[in-house]
Amino acid sequence: MSKPFVFEKPMGMRDTLPVLYQVKQQVRKVMEQEIKGWGYQFIQTPTLEYYDTVGEASAILDQQLFKLMDSEGKTLVLRPDMTAPIARVVSSSMKDVSYPIRLAYDSAVFRSQQREGGRPAEFEQVGVELIGDGTSSADAEVIALMVSALSKAGLQEFKVAVGHIGFLNELFLEVLGNAERAEELLRYLYEKNYVGYASHVKNLALSSIDKKRLLELLHLRGGEEILDEAKDMSAPGGKKAVADLQELFSILDLYGVKDKVVLDFTLFSHMSYYTGIVFEGYTNELGFPLCSGGRYDQLLGEFGRSAQAIGFGIRLDYLIEALNVKEPLNPRTCIVFSPDRRKEAIEKSRELREKGLSAVVQDISGVGSVDEYSGRFQEVIYYIGKPEKGEVQ
Amino acid sequence: MSKPFVFEKPMGMRDTLPVLYQVKQQVRKVMEQEIKGWGYQFIQTPTLEYYDTVGEASAILDQQLFKLMDSEGKTLVLRPDMTAPIARVVSSSMKDVSYPIRLAYDSAVFRSQQREGGRPAEFEQVGVELIGDGTSSADAEVIALMVSALSKAGLQEFKVAVGHIGFLNELFLEVLGNAERAEELLRYLYEKNYVGYASHVKNLALSSIDKKRLLELLHLRGGEEILDEAKDMSAPGGKKAVADLQELFSILDLYGVKDKVVLDFTLFSHMSYYTGIVFEGYTNELGFPLCSGGRYDQLLGEFGRSAQAIGFGIRLDYLIEALNVKEPLNPRTCIVFSPDRRKEAIEKSRELREKGLSAVVQDISGVGSVDEYSGRFQEVIYYIGKPEKGEVQ
Repeated sequence: MSKPFVFEKPMGMRDTLPVLYQVKQQVRKVMEQEIKGWGYQFIQTPTLEYYDTVGEASAILDQQLFKLMDSEGKTLVLRPDMTAPIARVVSSSMKDVSYPIRLAYDSAVFRSQQREGGRPAEFEQVGVELIGDGTSSADAEVIALMVSALSKAGLQEFKVAVGHIGFLNELFLEVLGNAERAEELLRYLYEKNYVGYASHVKNLALSSIDKKRLLELLHLRGGEEILDEAKDMSAPGGKKAVADLQELFSILDLYGVKDKVVLDFTLFSHMSYYTGIVFEGYTNELGFPLCSGGRYDQLLGEFGRSAQAIGFGIRLDYLIEALNVKEPLNPRTCIVFSPDRRKEAIEKSRELREKGLSAVVQDISGVGSVDEYSGRFQEVIYYIGKPEKGEVQ
Repeated sequence: MSKPFVFEKPMGMRDTLPVLYQVKQQVRKVMEQEIKGWGYQFIQTPTLEYYDTVGEASAILDQQLFKLMDSEGKTLVLRPDMTAPIARVVSSSMKDVSYPIRLAYDSAVFRSQQREGGRPAEFEQVGVELIGDGTSSADAEVIALMVSALSKAGLQEFKVAVGHIGFLNELFLEVLGNAERAEELLRYLYEKNYVGYASHVKNLALSSIDKKRLLELLHLRGGEEILDEAKDMSAPGGKKAVADLQELFSILDLYGVKDKVVLDFTLFSHMSYYTGIVFEGYTNELGFPLCSGGRYDQLLGEFGRSAQAIGFGIRLDYLIEALNVKEPLNPRTCIVFSPDRRKEAIEKSRELREKGLSAVVQDISGVGSVDEYSGRFQEVIYYIGKPEKGEVQ
């Protein structure tokens, strides 16, 4: 019986076929090794979490959550990110481990897509969380590690844009007077709709000096040299943010990655839990960030174990798109045999495998078209017919 | 704000902390390498599938499925096994690849648990599917590969019990006359309730010869030597099954794994799609199988691309339980520095990482208790105070 939707997958769901699988595995391995080299320890958390615990804390839009009900009527979600689950683990199973804690993950996360042909609804993220350390050393370490992991993965041309939530909040609060009015402007920045931001600012009931200040924000993007401008323009409460960034740059220099980092004071990430520096990684091949992160000093408190914390996540699918690797599959040998010569075929395969090579052993009676089948392999060895005739190759 | 269920995870959901993560990764890696060595190619399928496509075909009990609804009202399931998703892939994206096809996977699968403290509801399976080859060569290859993967993973003492669905079906049909009556007996075998089976047989309205035959089935477990007994007792239609097993054993001998395999004609697996040989792997450490598999020659037809097929799946969690490895974490070094000496600390870390070692670089002002923190590491190097004082260790 053939079924109606027999070939279909749910919206945003994808298969990973052998060639892509191998590329992913290679890239993942290199990044994991680098992350372990920096002393981060990998953990894994369940695919399903309680909505009340992790779904709400994750700050992913509610309509993007995959929700289901358990047998007791509690709402479960497919984890939409890894930061909240790790905060749960740090506050429960790892509550006796003193801060700072360096953890890493390589996990699928889920965000429901509303439109066909849109973005994937399930994707793999490789990332770290450095929990319980509020220093600029920690900020710089996490960015330097992200840069290093991307470089090791083979990404050549990329930039990390760094901004600061504290700077934006203080500036908008000073100019606009309250958080509600700030929210509208933040939404434009989040959408990277700078034209919309500018025309919205022009229509605000503000002095021309204030308007100019808000418009100048859009130009606060560039190298270390814009830090002075930023300091001049900053609200009093935002000076600390500028000083943080100054220190960050000096440490990134020691890590030898300063040339990869640019400042972008307009950067406003969608993760509502960020409290300090935020950053996104870009490459020319993609029109959107392939990785992002930031400081979140409040989230752990929601799980009952307060801590300053910072982390990043790299989207493996976007990274592979940017790398544009077309790696061929591992070379494979096929040994085709007829039943009388099975013994020789199995012995040959053992010999090849012991050398670390990959070998299929195939009974000729299990193959429809031998010519077509053998065309799939780099090398085919035949053990067919009477043994004394020797190996036909 | 502290939340009500802040530490809880949904029923059957588990965290994998660093030590276990590392053990899992090591075992997974060894098995993947072995499976690739036999020419199998890994693929990945999405976590969510349509119920109509894969949920129904999977033959996992309906109440064990995690179900949710998409925005169009279609029912989705968290994949309960990998065999049905792979059948979908082979019949769609890979429809132009000729048979036989050798695929492998290493994936989480999901089965809802009704009771607290029960089995995990999400677990990782490593397995293969050999699709489009109905020979005994294929049967033997899959069993030999499973044995080899388990051995390479470090499992010493284990046995694979092999049975045959065809043998059971033919015997019960001949003795009982119809499939409904056979079903009751099969249920006892599935539950491994041999006492229940025997007392049920005694109460059947059958000749004493037929009853004796059904009871003798329970003794059809052992080495190759019971094949003659099985042949004598078999229904005419079951002779082929016995001949298949005979050939299987002779090929397993060539693979050098015959001593790991025993016959068990009572074996009846819960996967309703099995049609030929079935098998389960056991070890003394566990009271239940840690891996299983069998031949399923009908399933692919349901996806519109008929093929004979056979596969196995190994439960990674059970295997690790049986292995009982207590692997220590990778040795780690911690470099603790005060800000004036950050440069030296970063240089030292680079030096260690280039040697392939793992090193944390920790700003001393980010640590609460230095003594407690440094106790976590195998080696601690301090760069504290004035640079000219040199390295304190």
